[in-house]
Amino acid sequence: MTSYRDAGIDIEAADGLVRSIASDVVATWTERVVGPFGGFAAGVELPDRYKSPVIMMSTDGVGTKLELARRSGLWSGVGQDLVAMCVDDLAAAGATPIGFVDYLAVGALHPPRDRAIVASVAAACTQARCPLLGGETAEHPGVMAPDAIDLAGTAMGVVEKGEEIGPHLVGEGDLLVGLRSPNLRSNGFSLVRAVFGDEIDQHIETLLAPSVIYSPTVIEAIGRGGVHSAAHITGGGLAANVGRALPEGLGAVIDSSAWKRPEIFDLVAERGIEEPEMFRTFNMGIGFCIVADPDRVDDLAAVLDQHDPAVLGKVETRKGVEVR
Amino acid sequence: MTSYRDAGIDIEAADGLVRSIASDVVATWTERVVGPFGGFAAGVELPDRYKSPVIMMSTDGVGTKLELARRSGLWSGVGQDLVAMCVDDLAAAGATPIGFVDYLAVGALHPPRDRAIVASVAAACTQARCPLLGGETAEHPGVMAPDAIDLAGTAMGVVEKGEEIGPHLVGEGDLLVGLRSPNLRSNGFSLVRAVFGDEIDQHIETLLAPSVIYSPTVIEAIGRGGVHSAAHITGGGLAANVGRALPEGLGAVIDSSAWKRPEIFDLVAERGIEEPEMFRTFNMGIGFCIVADPDRVDDLAAVLDQHDPAVLGKVETRKGVEVR
Repeated sequence: MTSYRDAGIDIEAADGLVRSIASDVVATWTERVVGPFGGFAAGVELPDRYKSPVIMMSTDGVGTKLELARRSGLWSGVGQDLVAMCVDDLAAAGATPIGFVDYLAVGALHPPRDRAIVASVAAACTQARCPLLGGETAEHPGVMAPDAIDLAGTAMGVVEKGEEIGPHLVGEGDLLVGLRSPNLRSNGFSLVRAVFGDEIDQHIETLLAPSVIYSPTVIEAIGRGGVHSAAHITGGGLAANVGRALPEGLGAVIDSSAWKRPEIFDLVAERGIEEPEMFRTFNMGIGFCIVADPDRVDDLAAVLDQHDPAVLGKVETRKGVEVR
Repeated sequence: MTSYRDAGIDIEAADGLVRSIASDVVATWTERVVGPFGGFAAGVELPDRYKSPVIMMSTDGVGTKLELARRSGLWSGVGQDLVAMCVDDLAAAGATPIGFVDYLAVGALHPPRDRAIVASVAAACTQARCPLLGGETAEHPGVMAPDAIDLAGTAMGVVEKGEEIGPHLVGEGDLLVGLRSPNLRSNGFSLVRAVFGDEIDQHIETLLAPSVIYSPTVIEAIGRGGVHSAAHITGGGLAANVGRALPEGLGAVIDSSAWKRPEIFDLVAERGIEEPEMFRTFNMGIGFCIVADPDRVDDLAAVLDQHDPAVLGKVETRKGVEVR
C-alpha cells in the first residue's frame, strides 16, 4: 500500500511549516486585514478615501538570482527582491500596494530554509507597507530535485480612477529623474551566472545584495503632484523600460554621465560583456525612473532624496529612448 | 564577449510570445479593465455596488498534474486547473473574482507550448468571469531543464465587508451540501504518479480531465442567501477542508454513501492506496462543499443543479469532521 508520504509529500511537515510562519505573516497584518490566517483566503479592506478604486495586480519571480541564494544558503534578502519586483511595477502605474501573496515551489520541504524565505518575504512586505495575505508552498517530488526551489509572488495595489500615471500624461520637456540602485536588483542573473561560472562563489554576497524597494517613496512623490509617468528598470534595461513610460512619438536621450555607476556593474562587465549588452540587461545603477513636470522636479527631489535622484534627460520629439 | 542570449535568455522570443498572447489576454478584458496590455501593471475598476469592499487574494499552482501535461503535450486543460484552484478558494470565502495573473517558469521558451498554456488560462478566466490582467513568463536556463515547466497563478476577488461567509456564521443543524467533481481536480498527483509509474501514459487523458470551476455557481448561490460557509476540497480531502469551514466545537459526520464515487478514484485506488489515504488525498467526487441553512437547501439546490448537489451530513456538536 502506498501513501502520499511515500510519494514524497509530507503533510505533517507542511502543517508544521504553516504553524511556524504564522507569527511572521500575521505581524504584517494591519487592522484592515480580514483573516483568519489559515482560512481559504484572506483580504484587506480598502481605505475609505477611494471613490472609484482601480485594483491592479503585478506578478513576478526572483528569477535565477535564487540559485545564488541556494548555492550560498543566504536566504535573508530574497523576500526583498521578490516584493520589490512586484510593488515597484505597481508604483510605475501609480498604485499603492495593499496586499501580497508568495508562491514557493520546492522539490522537498526544508522547514528551516522555507521558514527563512517566508520570514524574508514578510519583512519586505512590512518595508513596502503591504500585508502578506497568504501564500502557497508547493512540493513537487520527482519533478524538481529535492533541493530545487523557485519563488514568485503577486502584489495588488489600488489607485483612484483617473489618477493612474503613465504615458498619457507625458509631454515634451518633461524631465527623467532616475533613482539610484546600488546593485543588480533581480534580473540578468542567467547572464551573471554564465559569465562568472564557479568563480561566482567568491562574489556571491555582493551579487545577492537585495533590491531597493522604491514604492513607498514613489507613492509619496506621486502624492506631491508633478509625476507624469514612471518606469521600473528591470529586464531590457533603461532604454526599453523608460520607453514603456513614454507615449508614441516622444523619446529621450539618457546621459549616462549623469550618475556614477556602482562598482558591481564593472565587476560583471569585466568578465566579458560589452557595454550595449550591459545596458540592455542591467539597470546600471538606476533602478527606477520618474517622468516629471520640470517645474516640480526640485520639490520632488526632496521627497526622493534617500534614493539620490539624478536628472537623466528630457522628453523630446524623437523615436525611442537612447542611452549615450 | 557574452550576451544574454548566449546565457540562454531569448529576449526576441519572449517579445514574440508576448505579442502572440496579446489577443487571448485582451479577449478576457471587460470595459472595467484599465490597461494597457504591456504596461507595468493592469487593473480593474471595482463595481459600484460595494460600499466597504474587502479585496481578497488566493495563490496556487497546478502542482505535478503539470507533469502529466508535459509527458503528453496536452496543455489545453491546465489553465482551467489553475484558475479553478485559485477562484474556488476565493469562493469559499464568499469573494467574487475580479482579476487573475499567471506565472509560468520554464527552462527555455517553447513558444507554441507557452502560447497554448496562456490561451488555456485565458479561456478559464472567461469561464470564471474574471479578466486575465497580466502574467510573467520566467526563463531559468541552467536551473531548470530546457523542457521543465511550472505554472502558478493568483486570483483577487471582492466581497462586501460583513458579507464574508465562513465558520463564524455556522450553527448546529446546518447542512453540508456537496458539489460533484467528476475527476481528481489538481491535487494528489505526486501520489498518482508514484502508483501508476510508467503505466500512467495509458490513462493520461482521463487523469488530466480539468477541474470544475465552481465559483460562478457558488457566488450565485451565496447571493440567494442561506450559505453560511464553504470548503474547497483540495489537499487534505473532505474531512480536513470541511473542518476548516466549521467553527471550534462543531463538526459533522459525512455519509460517503450520499454520492456515487466516480470511477477515476477506483482506477487510482486499485493501484494500492487504502481507503483512508484516498479520502485524505483526493476529493473522492465532491470538489466543493457548502454549509447552508437547512430551510434554504431546497432553494439553493436549484441554483447548484449543474453540479448535482448532494446532502452529505449535518453540523452537530462534535470534535472534527469524519467520513463514514
